[in-house]
Amino acid sequence: MQPVKLGLIGCGTVGTGVARLLIEHRQLLADRTGIPLDLKYVADLDRRTDRGVTFPPGVFIDDAWTVVNDPEVDIVIEMIGGLGAAKELIEAAIAKGKQIVTANKALLATHGNELMRAAADAGVDLAYEASVGGCMPIVKSLREALVANEIHGMVGILNGTCNYILSQITATGMPFEQALAGAQANGYAEADPTLDVEGIDTAHKLAILSALAFGMRINLDDIYIEGISTITPLDIQFARDFGYRIKLLAICKNHGDRVEARVHPAMIPEHNILSHVSGSLNAITISGHAVDDLFLSGHGAGMLPTASAVLSDIIDLARNLRRGKTGRVPLMGYQPDRIQPVPVMPMDDIVVHYYIRFSVQDRPGVLAAIAGILGDNAISIQSVQQKDRKTNGWVPIVMLTHHAKEANIRKALREIGALSVVGPAPMLIRIEDPDARE
Amino acid sequence: MQPVKLGLIGCGTVGTGVARLLIEHRQLLADRTGIPLDLKYVADLDRRTDRGVTFPPGVFIDDAWTVVNDPEVDIVIEMIGGLGAAKELIEAAIAKGKQIVTANKALLATHGNELMRAAADAGVDLAYEASVGGCMPIVKSLREALVANEIHGMVGILNGTCNYILSQITATGMPFEQALAGAQANGYAEADPTLDVEGIDTAHKLAILSALAFGMRINLDDIYIEGISTITPLDIQFARDFGYRIKLLAICKNHGDRVEARVHPAMIPEHNILSHVSGSLNAITISGHAVDDLFLSGHGAGMLPTASAVLSDIIDLARNLRRGKTGRVPLMGYQPDRIQPVPVMPMDDIVVHYYIRFSVQDRPGVLAAIAGILGDNAISIQSVQQKDRKTNGWVPIVMLTHHAKEANIRKALREIGALSVVGPAPMLIRIEDPDARE
Repeated sequence: MQPVKLGLIGCGTVGTGVARLLIEHRQLLADRTGIPLDLKYVADLDRRTDRGVTFPPGVFIDDAWTVVNDPEVDIVIEMIGGLGAAKELIEAAIAKGKQIVTANKALLATHGNELMRAAADAGVDLAYEASVGGCMPIVKSLREALVANEIHGMVGILNGTCNYILSQITATGMPFEQALAGAQANGYAEADPTLDVEGIDTAHKLAILSALAFGMRINLDDIYIEGISTITPLDIQFARDFGYRIKLLAICKNHGDRVEARVHPAMIPEHNILSHVSGSLNAITISGHAVDDLFLSGHGAGMLPTASAVLSDIIDLARNLRRGKTGRVPLMGYQPDRIQPVPVMPMDDIVVHYYIRFSVQDRPGVLAAIAGILGDNAISIQSVQQKDRKTNGWVPIVMLTHHAKEANIRKALREIGALSVVGPAPMLIRIEDPDARE
Repeated sequence: MQPVKLGLIGCGTVGTGVARLLIEHRQLLADRTGIPLDLKYVADLDRRTDRGVTFPPGVFIDDAWTVVNDPEVDIVIEMIGGLGAAKELIEAAIAKGKQIVTANKALLATHGNELMRAAADAGVDLAYEASVGGCMPIVKSLREALVANEIHGMVGILNGTCNYILSQITATGMPFEQALAGAQANGYAEADPTLDVEGIDTAHKLAILSALAFGMRINLDDIYIEGISTITPLDIQFARDFGYRIKLLAICKNHGDRVEARVHPAMIPEHNILSHVSGSLNAITISGHAVDDLFLSGHGAGMLPTASAVLSDIIDLARNLRRGKTGRVPLMGYQPDRIQPVPVMPMDDIVVHYYIRFSVQDRPGVLAAIAGILGDNAISIQSVQQKDRKTNGWVPIVMLTHHAKEANIRKALREIGALSVVGPAPMLIRIEDPDARE
């Protein structure tokens, strides 16, 4: 059989992993697929040779455009990331009829609709399993395994940096800043951690997944995003007291005419399996009408776990080239003309349980004043704890609410914040129970 | 696009679920795949009409051979189970060039090699995702998502009946017989539970999975099988005392020139995620060189979860028919000429930790005698507990061993059993730590 010729652009961590799997496991891949894969190019501006993998002569080049412009290259593997050159290279490769593999979640979340349209129009496949959840086959599960399911929703832990940091705070009680520094020292967080800890990376992934699940256009702009940098060891301890763990969750739910799509820290019951996903692991619960819940967990990042997902895509496209046609599975899981723009619910409209921690002056009547305002805003209290954990002269009062509307909670918090006996910045954490059926 | 014509044989629980998804979610399937699916026949000897799904006139028939013999039928969906008629029908359908979807693990474990060979020779696809793990995409993960991984091994909970019974004993302390009766009353166990509780169903699934994972011929005969009917609440309580849970596990490990493949109850650490898979849920940890561990969990049985997996297969084959070729993914994950017979290690050769419970007379010197025999057989003891839980005049002594060879353990148990101060039938449970790296 004629080899499928591959051009890899970007030889950083994941790109190196892809090259290693292709070179070191050539025989395994041939035994499994029967299709010879020929890694014709690896393009990177950084020509250092200490990547732990030996390329045949002529393979390593420094010009990405050589890959895109070579008519022999069948599949372009974009591993440089970012929104600039990556987009130009992918667009040019699509225009030349090449198949595309990418792990670039930021690019897909931002420009995915136009790239998918361009690929569909050109009749090429654009594969992106590695853009979400590392080695977990989330895209394949949504597009293929769960093809006969109406997807009700998903709850996922999709950022290993945040999960590592929250796991460290939970295990040791150290403050966020110290846990972040430890994550940076151990290679779990970037020097600039903003994309991860502020929830933006998770939102990129949720934008892709919710579009796939619900047959809607990718819509990053309307996703509510809240990060973990304000989470304190005190809240994590209170969460444990109530039987919860705090995780940064990506949540989407299908309400038919509109969807929920939000990223924020949330408390989940400790008996839920997501509570047991610790360290840098990722996980997701996908709820479908036929399967009920399907749960996946695995490494969401790292050289070889991510490269494993990239290889899965490469093989899929190679199989389409040599044993079928492109377009075998529609790019976003639905026929392009069936994909709709579906509005995302404003956060004000969501209804969940809430954890609220106030700092108050330790004097009579404070609780009554707070409870009165909550009641006036149609919020009923499920439990209250006032523990003797004085910090800076304030005493914490912690409340769990019954189901309440976010708009009401926010209004109540503004009113409560105006009380002289209540300190600044109440802490608000939403409570999710992925096992609960609505 | 020309419709793909389907013939469903067997309209029991899962067959009914398949028909329901095809009929009730026709639009969803069309939106996703762009391929019209035409359910031409549903064949079942039982003509009752209370299945909760309405078939168009002429679809429901009672003769399975009509399905196989109709040249219009593209895909035959075998949902009758068993080794008799199912095999004949599938063989005939293959001979007529039809694509096959089956969930028949007993048939594949027993006659899978010849059926796969016949399908490959005839150039037809034979899909079997629903034969293992219900809605979990295990086959798809092994054949496609993990295609670039050397699979080191798998540890799975693959029988919902056993997991339900063990969860009930763990939660309530009730004896096995009572938990089994409860499972039968609640529809989690058959009237004759032998296939499930004696581990045979799990072994069928392991035979399929280990072949897929390691590129070897299906080999049911050499799998060691031990069921859960001898597990007592006492052992489950001791397991908890040591920080373990007892699960019926399917285990396979790749040693290169031979493999381990065994089904038996085992203790796993309570912090391992498999410990949190309770009730009738299934789960599996797949260990590959690139991904490290990938964990899946979901319903392993039931009408719609299993039907969801069958639909995934139907769509895959329909896509091959309309947008590609058959044989796109090799049936057992490897090119047929690369599949080897790989010997399964005899149980005598495996090396794990063991839990052993002896019933002994409560007198001095007993422990020394037992420990002496263990030592003579190169078995070192990790911990001993002698608790005051006298039953029938005997006192239990519980030991955990360090790594030991199964042959040595069995020899030691025979010698210890001959001691007059030791009661009959010591309990032996192997200990697995899926997180441990060897």
